[in-house]
Amino acid sequence: MSLAIKDDEVDIVIGALRSDLTIFMNEWRPMFSRFHVIIVKDPDLKEELKIPEGFNLDVYGKPDIDQVVGSSTSILFSGYSCRYFGYLVSRKKYIISVDDDCLPARDPKGFLVDAVAQHISNLTNPATPFFFNTLYDPYAEGADFVRGYPFSLRAGVKCALSCGLWLNLADHDAPTQALKARQRNSRYVDAVMTVPARSLIPISGINIAFEREAVGPALVPALKLAGEGKCRWETMEDIWSGLCVKIVCDHLGLGVKTGLPYIWRTDRGDPIASLKKEWEGVKLMEEVIPFFQSVRLPREATTVEECIIEVANAVKERLGSMDPVFARAAKAMLDWVKLWQSVGSSSSRSSAV
Amino acid sequence: MSLAIKDDEVDIVIGALRSDLTIFMNEWRPMFSRFHVIIVKDPDLKEELKIPEGFNLDVYGKPDIDQVVGSSTSILFSGYSCRYFGYLVSRKKYIISVDDDCLPARDPKGFLVDAVAQHISNLTNPATPFFFNTLYDPYAEGADFVRGYPFSLRAGVKCALSCGLWLNLADHDAPTQALKARQRNSRYVDAVMTVPARSLIPISGINIAFEREAVGPALVPALKLAGEGKCRWETMEDIWSGLCVKIVCDHLGLGVKTGLPYIWRTDRGDPIASLKKEWEGVKLMEEVIPFFQSVRLPREATTVEECIIEVANAVKERLGSMDPVFARAAKAMLDWVKLWQSVGSSSSRSSAV
Repeated sequence: MSLAIKDDEVDIVIGALRSDLTIFMNEWRPMFSRFHVIIVKDPDLKEELKIPEGFNLDVYGKPDIDQVVGSSTSILFSGYSCRYFGYLVSRKKYIISVDDDCLPARDPKGFLVDAVAQHISNLTNPATPFFFNTLYDPYAEGADFVRGYPFSLRAGVKCALSCGLWLNLADHDAPTQALKARQRNSRYVDAVMTVPARSLIPISGINIAFEREAVGPALVPALKLAGEGKCRWETMEDIWSGLCVKIVCDHLGLGVKTGLPYIWRTDRGDPIASLKKEWEGVKLMEEVIPFFQSVRLPREATTVEECIIEVANAVKERLGSMDPVFARAAKAMLDWVKLWQSVGSSSSRSSAV
Repeated sequence: MSLAIKDDEVDIVIGALRSDLTIFMNEWRPMFSRFHVIIVKDPDLKEELKIPEGFNLDVYGKPDIDQVVGSSTSILFSGYSCRYFGYLVSRKKYIISVDDDCLPARDPKGFLVDAVAQHISNLTNPATPFFFNTLYDPYAEGADFVRGYPFSLRAGVKCALSCGLWLNLADHDAPTQALKARQRNSRYVDAVMTVPARSLIPISGINIAFEREAVGPALVPALKLAGEGKCRWETMEDIWSGLCVKIVCDHLGLGVKTGLPYIWRTDRGDPIASLKKEWEGVKLMEEVIPFFQSVRLPREATTVEECIIEVANAVKERLGSMDPVFARAAKAMLDWVKLWQSVGSSSSRSSAV
């Protein structure tokens, strides 16, 4: 695959929730070694990280987070949220991020999938959010727009976010995971598609890539469930962040893609133990979705930061009184924008629209 | 695949644009022979049809059309539109329709695809138009809803229309077909998905199935291009009809699916000859899409017939003066509803919403 970008335009960001990254990094070596890697250690993790040699990488831990972020923020960088610190300190155009319990997948022919190359291809080819193409990605080799696709929409728009999928352990929530503890995903769907504008999608953070310069501030660690543990199926932080990104992209005329690349997700955690906890996610989503379906951003919001501030204010106003988790989320979003502006390279004025 | 419906609830409707259906019917025999078949002969076709023995079928031709429809209508049943006569005279709950230049496809493992069974599965399993599921059809075996999918939306809604895809000759328009005359589609994407609500899609009539009792009157032969010939890539009748179905389904809370099953589309026609014609479709779609994106149906329209009348009136009002083709389309839609009510079994009061 010929990529239209330079290696130094990409950061690979890994949140380390376990200390031994030897197998993880060695398996990903063929895909990661060309790029700069940022590893952020979960501040709750006490043991020292074990990382094999031979990578161009920076490691950040609790002392770095405390120093950069300080104590004047409502944002918690613990658990899966630690990777957001990597998004904040990155100075690259693109970020690719996979969970540390994921390994490279193989396609149905047995070839290793280069998830990095596929994400970059997704991000550097246009997205088509304003009309559905039945033969999937029209820019893929051997593909095109089908009959009836308006010619004026065939140039597409910038793709800001690429969500990859998962073989083996699928990304179910706590109840589904517990009820179908033995179910594994073996269906390899050879497609990339743009999620249509105004259609919401549960974006998983397990295997994603985005143009940091275009939508970075919208990937925000805001919704922390009270009882969440260190299993994805107990969390919602990425789902919330994904809903934020999607409505911001819809507002700014940017695209979101889903589909290829797959990664291989290994087992971690005990679904039955998760079932015993009362999972707030079930209840909260019933409030969250109608909110995101109906929230409208004002025309004056033309940057990602402005959009997130608008969303945060709407969250505070419309959801704040329902559950304290929402008031905290709104506060974290406002703090995140401030952090992004002071710490990050806030250059995300959208070039779209 | 265990199907939840009886064989006598299905009509296979074939529009015959060429006289010799021997190979076509014999190749489809394993899938078609259990069901009643309606063959409608293109009124422009002079030769007698050749149809092999062993099917439970009814054949309709120009005399039948003239007798049933009479002369008091603006609807032309010539070319690909002849199949709509079959939709009109069917009394079955479901209709499955494929073009007569299509043969059964094989999946990547080499097994023949039973397109009829897949369409029935698509129609009898719920659709999920109000939220996107990243692992595609949540009702497929081994699949489910992903983390973040609202529990209140997991029951889904009735699926009214299933659009299958094409291997070998893809469904391009005239200019694309001429420019990429040698391009063939070989990508088998093993997925069925619901097209999100409020997202428009170019629905092809080549390989479709629908619940006639739920949305029959919305499949309307209305947009006839002046210079259209007997090649799909020169036509737009199904695209128009598909846009009508989609906005009606969105309004009535019904679902539309796309993806599996594939059929194998054989070559027919000369793309270069098509290129020499001035293809109206390019120009018209630029008017058609903004219209369908913005048309709103009133709450009072609760049946498919009422919806189509509303759309027809809006077409007349907003597009009628732009091009005579639109005024004719509006007239044909109104005539179609009348025909459906007098000839068809107009029982399509929606049970959804």
